[in-house]
Amino acid sequence: MKVNVIKIGGNVVEDRASLESFIADFAQLAAPAILVHGGGVMASQMLTNLGIEPKMLEGRRVTDEETLRIVTMVYAGWCNKSIVALLQKHGRNALGLSGADGNVIKAVKRPLIESTDKDGNKVTLDYGYAGDIINVNADLLTNMLTQGITPVICSITHDCNGTLLNTNADTIASATAIAMSSCCDEVNLTYCFEKNGVLYDRDDENSVIGSLNPSEYAELKAEGRVAAGMIPKLDNAFRALDQGVARVEIKNASNILNAIGTVLTTK
Amino acid sequence: MKVNVIKIGGNVVEDRASLESFIADFAQLAAPAILVHGGGVMASQMLTNLGIEPKMLEGRRVTDEETLRIVTMVYAGWCNKSIVALLQKHGRNALGLSGADGNVIKAVKRPLIESTDKDGNKVTLDYGYAGDIINVNADLLTNMLTQGITPVICSITHDCNGTLLNTNADTIASATAIAMSSCCDEVNLTYCFEKNGVLYDRDDENSVIGSLNPSEYAELKAEGRVAAGMIPKLDNAFRALDQGVARVEIKNASNILNAIGTVLTTK
Repeated sequence: MKVNVIKIGGNVVEDRASLESFIADFAQLAAPAILVHGGGVMASQMLTNLGIEPKMLEGRRVTDEETLRIVTMVYAGWCNKSIVALLQKHGRNALGLSGADGNVIKAVKRPLIESTDKDGNKVTLDYGYAGDIINVNADLLTNMLTQGITPVICSITHDCNGTLLNTNADTIASATAIAMSSCCDEVNLTYCFEKNGVLYDRDDENSVIGSLNPSEYAELKAEGRVAAGMIPKLDNAFRALDQGVARVEIKNASNILNAIGTVLTTK
Repeated sequence: MKVNVIKIGGNVVEDRASLESFIADFAQLAAPAILVHGGGVMASQMLTNLGIEPKMLEGRRVTDEETLRIVTMVYAGWCNKSIVALLQKHGRNALGLSGADGNVIKAVKRPLIESTDKDGNKVTLDYGYAGDIINVNADLLTNMLTQGITPVICSITHDCNGTLLNTNADTIASATAIAMSSCCDEVNLTYCFEKNGVLYDRDDENSVIGSLNPSEYAELKAEGRVAAGMIPKLDNAFRALDQGVARVEIKNASNILNAIGTVLTTK
């Protein structure tokens, strides 16, 4: 079986018109596909509406108990079910999952991280209820795909001990693609977002880099050409390529059937 | 296959200690089981926290666009995933569903209802995004049960045209039990809530009516002994008994393995 794992970013999920257009395209994909989504901008908006200040640490969300409740509501509730309902409208039989559902993604609460701040002082980073993935249940996903069901996975996992965990959607997409590679003939991973791909000049949408290998990526980083938010995405993307995923691409969500973005290569 | 369909009310879902105790009991049930849940009190709380006044009409929620978003977040997000994660903790492989997931419950947006108010004036009742059930996909549920998966269904359905709908959880439980009756040997439906059963004296928890048939129910209603909130529950419960469900019981959620509440009978 050939499987497409496709991740859409928060900006696509949060704008109803972009989401409807993306889903209409996605529904036309012939091969079995798994959709992974975030919803961070909407979660921050909901936290703000409730008078809770969103907290970030080195680009990642700090998830206290109240924040966990809100992100679970936004990701697993509104975002996930809106996507599933739109896919059903387009004749694609979808089924939404958090990592707890069918035990599809087991994670562990991120331990405290000892680090050093920019002034050289020792600091302890505490991300709260953030999950680091241990295992993706490829059997359940394969079973669903062979029944003609499209799994739609949100960025919530669990620790098998009753606790839900907030988990980066790019990492979920990468871990899912890697796990599926062990039991499928070919797995393709595509990160779809609001840009046309990895840009050489981040202010010029026409400067898409057609292909990127690890040493070119290292050069771009050294030149300061890769935006901070892109670094974890690209790290995840290269990890997938290293661990059995056949093809990894980063492209614009607005035209997934035809657009070509940046294809990652091993050398 | 013998299947238990069990519905838990909002008061059980919303109190963490009650929920944990209920889930520990539920996880011990031997037979294949389907869990249906609400979350209304928590939804009203979230609406209030966001400065939106919850609107009710004849005991049922009026669901405008913003309310639909919030109830979907609360029911399909936080409540559903908390329950699933707790079941996984207790070794029960659960999978949460809204009606859109796997197209498990198809509904139609409730039409405007022409009615007469207490002063005899004609009024039009508009429940907004409220769903009336058309069909429950018993095949999908049966398939999950035979794989050892426990479906956990929240009170959100869809219209197959991209719109989610807020749907009464008691009605979902009844419709699910009826649909499962067509393909299972025996289906039992249990409504679990914070009371010991149908009470003869609503202020006396020890006045549980052991069994109730339709004519006794009509008498109780005529005497004003049935609380307004119990009437739709009992109507749903008797409908299930009429349409193939083997046994319907209403009991306390705090001791589902041993407690006996009110058993409904056809005559």
